[in-house]
Amino acid sequence: MSKKIVEPKENATNRLEAVSDGVFAVALTLLVLDIHVPETDPTKLLDALIRLLPHILTFILSFLIVTFYWTAHHVIFNSIHRSDRYLLWLNAFHLLFVVFLPFSTAMLARFHDAPLAVDIYGFNIILCSLSSIAFWLYAARNSLTTGDLSKSEIAMVALRLSVNPIVCGLALGIAFLNTTAAILLYLATPVWYVLTGPNAAAGDSGTWQLPRPWRRR
Amino acid sequence: MSKKIVEPKENATNRLEAVSDGVFAVALTLLVLDIHVPETDPTKLLDALIRLLPHILTFILSFLIVTFYWTAHHVIFNSIHRSDRYLLWLNAFHLLFVVFLPFSTAMLARFHDAPLAVDIYGFNIILCSLSSIAFWLYAARNSLTTGDLSKSEIAMVALRLSVNPIVCGLALGIAFLNTTAAILLYLATPVWYVLTGPNAAAGDSGTWQLPRPWRRR
Amino acid sequence: MSKKIVEPKENATNRLEAVSDGVFAVALTLLVLDIHVPETDPTKLLDALIRLLPHILTFILSFLIVTFYWTAHHVIFNSIHRSDRYLLWLNAFHLLFVVFLPFSTAMLARFHDAPLAVDIYGFNIILCSLSSIAFWLYAARNSLTTGDLSKSEIAMVALRLSVNPIVCGLALGIAFLNTTAAILLYLATPVWYVLTGPNAAAGDSGTWQLPRPWRRR
Amino acid sequence: MSKKIVEPKENATNRLEAVSDGVFAVALTLLVLDIHVPETDPTKLLDALIRLLPHILTFILSFLIVTFYWTAHHVIFNSIHRSDRYLLWLNAFHLLFVVFLPFSTAMLARFHDAPLAVDIYGFNIILCSLSSIAFWLYAARNSLTTGDLSKSEIAMVALRLSVNPIVCGLALGIAFLNTTAAILLYLATPVWYVLTGPNAAAGDSGTWQLPRPWRRR
Repeated sequence: MSKKIVEPKENATNRLEAVSDGVFAVALTLLVLDIHVPETDPTKLLDALIRLLPHILTFILSFLIVTFYWTAHHVIFNSIHRSDRYLLWLNAFHLLFVVFLPFSTAMLARFHDAPLAVDIYGFNIILCSLSSIAFWLYAARNSLTTGDLSKSEIAMVALRLSVNPIVCGLALGIAFLNTTAAILLYLATPVWYVLTGPNAAAGDSGTWQLPRPWRRR
Repeated sequence: MSKKIVEPKENATNRLEAVSDGVFAVALTLLVLDIHVPETDPTKLLDALIRLLPHILTFILSFLIVTFYWTAHHVIFNSIHRSDRYLLWLNAFHLLFVVFLPFSTAMLARFHDAPLAVDIYGFNIILCSLSSIAFWLYAARNSLTTGDLSKSEIAMVALRLSVNPIVCGLALGIAFLNTTAAILLYLATPVWYVLTGPNAAAGDSGTWQLPRPWRRR
Repeated sequence: MSKKIVEPKENATNRLEAVSDGVFAVALTLLVLDIHVPETDPTKLLDALIRLLPHILTFILSFLIVTFYWTAHHVIFNSIHRSDRYLLWLNAFHLLFVVFLPFSTAMLARFHDAPLAVDIYGFNIILCSLSSIAFWLYAARNSLTTGDLSKSEIAMVALRLSVNPIVCGLALGIAFLNTTAAILLYLATPVWYVLTGPNAAAGDSGTWQLPRPWRRR
Repeated sequence: MSKKIVEPKENATNRLEAVSDGVFAVALTLLVLDIHVPETDPTKLLDALIRLLPHILTFILSFLIVTFYWTAHHVIFNSIHRSDRYLLWLNAFHLLFVVFLPFSTAMLARFHDAPLAVDIYGFNIILCSLSSIAFWLYAARNSLTTGDLSKSEIAMVALRLSVNPIVCGLALGIAFLNTTAAILLYLATPVWYVLTGPNAAAGDSGTWQLPRPWRRR
């Protein structure tokens, strides 16, 4: 055991994943703080709750979107086995945009008819996606990943991660015509990812996952 | 060690459990934010604290109920050894309903005499239970579980998980007659689970746990 | 690897520790939410900050006290290798009292001259200590602990854990004479634990730790 | 397996790291709570958002600074393999100063023109740095570290950790001349650390990391 003690710690990404999971978990839970108990007479509680509906719906929207990014983070880091200083910081920028979502969500709930608020929300999502593409490409190009991924495999994962920011980019424009349509587009990619792909264990030929080493498991 | 580096990460559910534990921990702790320090004269502090009693009691109620769901999650995932995309999302819906509980709790504390608020709380609990049954049955039917569970064992766990939503379903109706009785019914299943079963290590023939592989430990 | 997959998960207390660490971490951090930025003119900022002093001091007090309980939890669970349903719930009650501390702290900061608020804080601490003694004795008496602890060793740990509630019990009475003296007594045991004991690795003959199996490490 | 059960738990720093990661994650996420949704007419939303800018910029500043301390903590603990009671408490004091940052940040956002608020923020950062130097030196001098670090290696890490408090100490004075310049100086060291150093895996000859045992990995 004494030999073990002098070795450096295994699994160079476990604390990166631990702090990321912590940030995701807190971000998910903080979303509910935007739903305030109405100050009203008990007899008018139903009306007050109906007025809360935008806050409840945006809570659900953002919960699904944060889960979507957590899922992507989880799948990507299943293929990353080493970290370096740049990866820590690229991941930190991703978390920065995730942590900003409770604010964007509260903005959206309060001003769901204002294109500006809808676009801030969409822009926040786009930054979450772009930053996840950034740390994926950085890790893949700097040999921090598991196994021997080919250039086309690396590009395919990046391409899949790019669907969401492209759809949300379109939604930024649509928000000026119809805010509800833009909001539904923000939800489109997560729903598509949940529904598509075979009913297989994580890592087996689904939409998100990386092909080879994980598939073997 | 170089061989280890190229292997994918072990234990496909550990990040799912980590983010779930994080969400449970934050949800448990956020409950206390509903108990506000009274703005009062120090001489009238006792009266002010007595008026806080509904908030303190619902805090304790929800702390026990969230712990109940954490315990169930813990026991169920002791028998799940693999995750896939659907399991991640079924688990996410479970967490969505758990995260909503601090709001339902604050509603209940503020409107504990209003059947509508009492029923929202109960409906939230029912959704927590149904979503836990969903991820259990999904995992068990898709070979994500440990060992060789028989159909009757899988059904038995689901049946035990169904007691709480059935009792709470009854409470939804009772709330229109007596809100206190409904609230006590919400607490009934967790208390029953704590009290019943042999004084044995987790996994040994208790109320919640799964029978075979764990029992051997 | 397929053999590994069907085995139940190792380390029956790791999720109990994970969720506890999460609760401790959130409780430690929520304490700062009681210190509000003063609404004042920039030229009167110093005066406003001086008025914040009770909130800052109780923040530090509670941070040290929560850390004290986390340290105790950490040391105790170093000797517990299995969990069962009762241990999960005894631990949950401990966490319930820890989670209540941010409220007690805010009460103390606002009403630091009122014996009632000082006693609520002290009573909260006493409940934290008693619940930690409860899960320790339960684990030790039900073979959930590591190694072969003698009855006297088990009792010694419980005795050491009892110093804090006894000192705080005295402080409950002293609060009616002098609230500052009572608050200082709440801090006495944590400070004593930090200062006493040899400068040794955790587990070596210190005040808190368990003697045998750990010492060998 | 029975033999494994009676052994004490491995990795004496994993819970210390877990609770620290939790505190860092919550502190990072709480920062966003200082950005409040403006109460305004939707047509004046852009003006209201521009008034939010100091809060958004200080949010980003503090997110980067807390990440900086998390990175430092991560790198330092990669070289620490054992903990003792004093290390737990030195680490706790570090976390105390990290947890205080959301308050200092909110102060800075509200009073970014007031030297007093700018200096409180800088002093908070200095305490974060000094406490990290303290636990590093304590661990290195008490054989809690991995491998055989020479005195000059230990001193070099401490020296690198000292750059930030020295720069921030200068900023404390500059704040009385120009608050913006002081705030930019607070950001200087983190930016310098991100930009400098080779594009290498963590542990390889970078600015922060410890030289020998990690490099081998």
